[in-house]
Amino acid sequence: MEEPATVIAVPRTHRFSEPLPLQSGETLPEYELVYETYGSLNAERSNAVLICHALNASHHVAGLHADEHGRPLPRSEGWWDNMIGPGKPVDTDEFFVIGVNNLGSCFGSSGPTHRHPRTGELWGADFPVVTVEDWVNAQARLLDVLGIEQLAAVMGGSLGGMQTLSWTLQHPQRVRHAVVVASAPNLTAENIAFNEVARRAIVTDPDFHGGHYARHGVIPRRGLRIARMIGHITYLSDDVMNAKFGRRLKPLGDAARQGDVEAVERLAYRYTTQDVEFQIESYLRHQGDKFSEYFDANTYLLITRALDYFDPARAHGGELSRALSAAKADFLVISFTTDWRFSPARSRELVRGLLHNRRRVSYAEIDAPHGHDAFLLDDPRYMAAVRAYFEQSVRATAPREAA
Amino acid sequence: MEEPATVIAVPRTHRFSEPLPLQSGETLPEYELVYETYGSLNAERSNAVLICHALNASHHVAGLHADEHGRPLPRSEGWWDNMIGPGKPVDTDEFFVIGVNNLGSCFGSSGPTHRHPRTGELWGADFPVVTVEDWVNAQARLLDVLGIEQLAAVMGGSLGGMQTLSWTLQHPQRVRHAVVVASAPNLTAENIAFNEVARRAIVTDPDFHGGHYARHGVIPRRGLRIARMIGHITYLSDDVMNAKFGRRLKPLGDAARQGDVEAVERLAYRYTTQDVEFQIESYLRHQGDKFSEYFDANTYLLITRALDYFDPARAHGGELSRALSAAKADFLVISFTTDWRFSPARSRELVRGLLHNRRRVSYAEIDAPHGHDAFLLDDPRYMAAVRAYFEQSVRATAPREAA
Repeated sequence: MEEPATVIAVPRTHRFSEPLPLQSGETLPEYELVYETYGSLNAERSNAVLICHALNASHHVAGLHADEHGRPLPRSEGWWDNMIGPGKPVDTDEFFVIGVNNLGSCFGSSGPTHRHPRTGELWGADFPVVTVEDWVNAQARLLDVLGIEQLAAVMGGSLGGMQTLSWTLQHPQRVRHAVVVASAPNLTAENIAFNEVARRAIVTDPDFHGGHYARHGVIPRRGLRIARMIGHITYLSDDVMNAKFGRRLKPLGDAARQGDVEAVERLAYRYTTQDVEFQIESYLRHQGDKFSEYFDANTYLLITRALDYFDPARAHGGELSRALSAAKADFLVISFTTDWRFSPARSRELVRGLLHNRRRVSYAEIDAPHGHDAFLLDDPRYMAAVRAYFEQSVRATAPREAA
Repeated sequence: MEEPATVIAVPRTHRFSEPLPLQSGETLPEYELVYETYGSLNAERSNAVLICHALNASHHVAGLHADEHGRPLPRSEGWWDNMIGPGKPVDTDEFFVIGVNNLGSCFGSSGPTHRHPRTGELWGADFPVVTVEDWVNAQARLLDVLGIEQLAAVMGGSLGGMQTLSWTLQHPQRVRHAVVVASAPNLTAENIAFNEVARRAIVTDPDFHGGHYARHGVIPRRGLRIARMIGHITYLSDDVMNAKFGRRLKPLGDAARQGDVEAVERLAYRYTTQDVEFQIESYLRHQGDKFSEYFDANTYLLITRALDYFDPARAHGGELSRALSAAKADFLVISFTTDWRFSPARSRELVRGLLHNRRRVSYAEIDAPHGHDAFLLDDPRYMAAVRAYFEQSVRATAPREAA
């Protein structure tokens, strides 16, 4: 068996000097977007696929990053590298795939950790509130730069799915196919509530300083840790947590993994309220610590707010099917049975609204145990559904004439 | 129609001078329990019903408190006043009902806000870790003081249901009926995870000072707020949150309540990451603020740990039905369909384990929309099930002979 060719991904930056008007009424002056591309744009410029990222991801969708000598860096795979690449479900031998980092992010595109282009001050909490619609408009400008008039497909999971849906409504002529995974036409009250608790943990951290922590030389790590722990719980299913951790205690973790049931049974509670007792606690603390090392607090606020605000039906009296009447794309919608944060019911709402507008829709509800996280994992039925859709539908659709 | 008689509840305190050995191996020296009783103990001392409380409740189960002139205080109803009182499902015209505040609480019984009886120092974080089993043993001693050998019933919801179950295993001869509502034979990993995030929010609050905040004259309010917000989300169902709050924005709350749909539609987003935008946010912040005014942080840690640790099957190789073989009581088990924190599946586990041991079990799965909070609310089917059980089963069971 041959080793698959190593795909080295090279991030590029484009500086836009034309200001971007935002939904909030504010305007972003000049700004930068960081992006990566994989595969080759064909002569007709008709094989481009845009990938939209979710909360804590970036433009680095596929392949590996390289060091200064061009050698691949270990563990630098893109966040959807299982999905996108040569011979993969979204096959970069055939499609020209683009990953863009969104505005407000902390991974390269203009955001709170950057400096205001005029004043030279760090943006911090003053970076304007950006929405899914703003992101899509910024992405559309990047496509203009790349000379891509129409996308073969837009694709994303979770918040990325919201951007995908938004593409079909804001720029219907520019999208032939939309692949919306583990997403929803808006957030429920419960979802907003989880976002709000995470934000409150950050904002009330004494090191937050109203979002200008950088000026004080500190980082609101406590808040970021709590925010990430809450997120992690809600991205997993109860089932997968029970399978992975159950009620196993921390110190004898190794014994448990080795199946030494007796050792686990012998293990006594330590009766502590502040120290780790259960493995699940240790896991969550670790995830929180890691996250607080690399993620920006203001970015966390901005991105969760973009999630909260997204609601295309809002401008149409709350009627989703009226909002969806603008769409011209064909759709593949995918949900996962144990995803309780973006439940199948929400995907079915979207499917119904699209069918009401006589859109062509394929819908797959995957019986996966992994909760919301499933959209990033390797479920073979999920992978096969995406592969089949790209092979049979995306590939077969000729570019649409401009209106 | 006659006004129902006002029941004035009078808290009493009993000081125990005999030390209480705890599950952790530690010993609690002399301690106090605060309790209330409603109705009258009959001559045979056979009509006593013990009510066990959950996370943030107390001994004040029913009736109203009075001011120094004996006048009822407005809004001072006991936390289960809809369930317990004259003519109510647990009828205090017939039963002698006892509410006890648990050890470690901040509502009167010995806990972290009290002083160590020997040293005179505030307990704070040094109050020993107490378990469901410890609470039950302390409650049993109170019954000794009250001259009650055997309970007609023990009853509780959530963590109170765990105490109820524990009563039937630790003191099987002393319980004729057990009413276990919205509870579980142990917590799942997800439940422990939610508790852990709440605890981390408290413990990492700079005002926590390792649990000795009182010495510093501060209170870890930020942590308590976050803990309560998390709790609140998980006690409600997604459905009830959508019905109560949906995606409605804050400022025009009144318009929305008055059905002024157009006003709500006109209402524009304010595009803010730190201020309240949605009503659900305002509600959660309010709940968090209120809680942080009256609840003790060390108590929160102790009580959530008691929840985590409870697991009667643990001493029996994880086999619940082996653990339940000690029980002699009859059971009424009740769960609520939308309760995702203590789901019906967990109650059914308990029911199966009890049936395996040939216990008499009645089980009601109530199709209520309110999530875990349903156990405190007035669902008529729920109330009727409890009423019928007390009228037909508890009343009809003669005292069991001592073994």
